[in-house]
Amino acid sequence: MSTLHDHYPISCPFCKIAEAYPPESSPIPQSPDPEKVDPQCHLILSTPHVLAFLDILPIAPGHILLTSRNHHEKLSDLNTSDESRESSRALGEWLPVVSRALCKATGIEDWNIVQNNGERAAQVVPHVHFHLIPRYQEGRRDNIAGKGKVDVGMLKSWRMFGRGAREELDDEEGAELAGELRRCLREEVEGQASGGGKPKL
Amino acid sequence: MSTLHDHYPISCPFCKIAEAYPPESSPIPQSPDPEKVDPQCHLILSTPHVLAFLDILPIAPGHILLTSRNHHEKLSDLNTSDESRESSRALGEWLPVVSRALCKATGIEDWNIVQNNGERAAQVVPHVHFHLIPRYQEGRRDNIAGKGKVDVGMLKSWRMFGRGAREELDDEEGAELAGELRRCLREEVEGQASGGGKPKL
Repeated sequence: MSTLHDHYPISCPFCKIAEAYPPESSPIPQSPDPEKVDPQCHLILSTPHVLAFLDILPIAPGHILLTSRNHHEKLSDLNTSDESRESSRALGEWLPVVSRALCKATGIEDWNIVQNNGERAAQVVPHVHFHLIPRYQEGRRDNIAGKGKVDVGMLKSWRMFGRGAREELDDEEGAELAGELRRCLREEVEGQASGGGKPKL
Repeated sequence: MSTLHDHYPISCPFCKIAEAYPPESSPIPQSPDPEKVDPQCHLILSTPHVLAFLDILPIAPGHILLTSRNHHEKLSDLNTSDESRESSRALGEWLPVVSRALCKATGIEDWNIVQNNGERAAQVVPHVHFHLIPRYQEGRRDNIAGKGKVDVGMLKSWRMFGRGAREELDDEEGAELAGELRRCLREEVEGQASGGGKPKL
């Protein structure tokens, strides 16, 4: 039986992304170059502890991954040190904010968060990540940038998390959608910062 | 079409649990009475911000729910105030710790975290909660307390998150398993507190 590591014999793809996009002064990168890595990365969030970008094999248009910046294989590897405690806390704090930006950018109201640990749980990349997967209403997907090719109705099985059944993200559509997601995220973060109370991030 | 609220016309079942089990001096309750609520609640964690207990309709033995203590319908409703920021952070911090206790108590190495938002995403109870769902190796489930009746192989579809296809948790098995989970959680928390560094929780 193959192991997770057989798929990525050289190095972790999410660590490559983390290395290519170091934290900037703002958590929302201004206009990150998707071609810093291969395959292209459509980045929407980059902090000292977490990153978010579009899944290159979306189950539905707007399928986002939120990862820890540092390499930890499973969720159980977090909150075991000061560093990984900060990562677990940042993942918890950003999941709602990225969710709000996803709803705003795509018009969805319903979505799933999924985080897989181990091969039997359909984990493909051995670096902790949460999937944010929009669930579209029938006939409400036509005006979405990067609307992709995999119908959300195909999300019938956990096997969808593996490779094979999903089609690759189109880079042009990905760039457009990521730009819209960054715009919505920026509104979220700035709205919180100027909301009268202290910033929530 | 029915709405989520039609299923719970009176009040939120997770708010009832939160009310029945106020925070204690330790995050791991000593021996909580399952009969404080109906149906019984097999509680394993109770803090000012989060609670964890066994799902009464387990997809697999050891299926845990981690919820915010206060009522928020969707994940996007968190991190909008100081209070709900603390909840999002606590969810992020406890997910890895409860995962470790789940692995230790059941012997699993692989598991899924799933958090559903809205009816199209198979959310049943309109109060933010994360599912922790063990994925067992073939033939490795015989020695587990509360091994349940639904085979993990049945987890073929998101529809499994709805009611109907899942069988109710046996209260005796639930009590035994929850006791073991509390014991493992206590080891996690005490291990962190006495680990030389400052407590991580």
